[in-house]
Amino acid sequence: MSITFAPAAGLSHEALEEGAVFAPRFDEKGLVTAIAVEASSGAVLMVAHMNAEALARTLETGEAHYYSRSRGKIWRKGETSGEIQKLVEIRADCDQDALLVVVEQTGRGGACHTGRKTCFYRRVEVAEAAATLVPIGEPRLFDPSDVYGAS
Amino acid sequence: MSITFAPAAGLSHEALEEGAVFAPRFDEKGLVTAIAVEASSGAVLMVAHMNAEALARTLETGEAHYYSRSRGKIWRKGETSGEIQKLVEIRADCDQDALLVVVEQTGRGGACHTGRKTCFYRRVEVAEAAATLVPIGEPRLFDPSDVYGAS
Repeated sequence: MSITFAPAAGLSHEALEEGAVFAPRFDEKGLVTAIAVEASSGAVLMVAHMNAEALARTLETGEAHYYSRSRGKIWRKGETSGEIQKLVEIRADCDQDALLVVVEQTGRGGACHTGRKTCFYRRVEVAEAAATLVPIGEPRLFDPSDVYGAS
Repeated sequence: MSITFAPAAGLSHEALEEGAVFAPRFDEKGLVTAIAVEASSGAVLMVAHMNAEALARTLETGEAHYYSRSRGKIWRKGETSGEIQKLVEIRADCDQDALLVVVEQTGRGGACHTGRKTCFYRRVEVAEAAATLVPIGEPRLFDPSDVYGAS
């Protein structure tokens, strides 16, 4: 099985937004935004990107694959860390340029490479026209230097 | 008050990921990905983009502002529809190129321009190497033709 996707070009707004044709609107780099959320809690775990191949592999294998812009290649989430994401379902947004990737986070439950459950572990605090980041108390579930080696 | 942000260039990985300096990593178009989630439920409502000005205005006014790539301008969410998003907090991700915008969705509760609560109202279904979209049953909370006029 190799899943291919319908081209978005030529689809009307109506078809894109209300139709049954899944035609992901990959950008000029061939990517869509992929937001991983935890199935059990709905928590946003991370934001990444998928190209057509990463999306197809995710649907085919039932494990989240992304495209790493920094490394320029497909990346099976958890291939190094063991923090595999089991796919529950994918949802597309209205104009089909973003995907919600609903997963069960396996391993130690740390979707973030820093070892935390979520990448969103700091909130913005504003005081006197200056914005700073304050930790919200997400614990590290693993030590990244154990998992990825010393950087 | 006019909030400015620290430049990300020159910050170490460690500073970016573990530090208190909020230095949003705007891309080559000056944008970061902004994911609006509903404070009460944690539900992902929509994905949009912010430039520095939209982000500053959001923090300054307490109402979500985005940058419309199609219209090429700042957009106060709800300015036409009345579906204003009251800011609860913003969280930054590990490498500071994505923001979680935690909001109370006002108006009729429809963050999506199609009138639904969320833009993610269809899930991907795969059968025999073909992927289609299936509605998950999100009702329309308003009629977009009433709100935006006939298209």
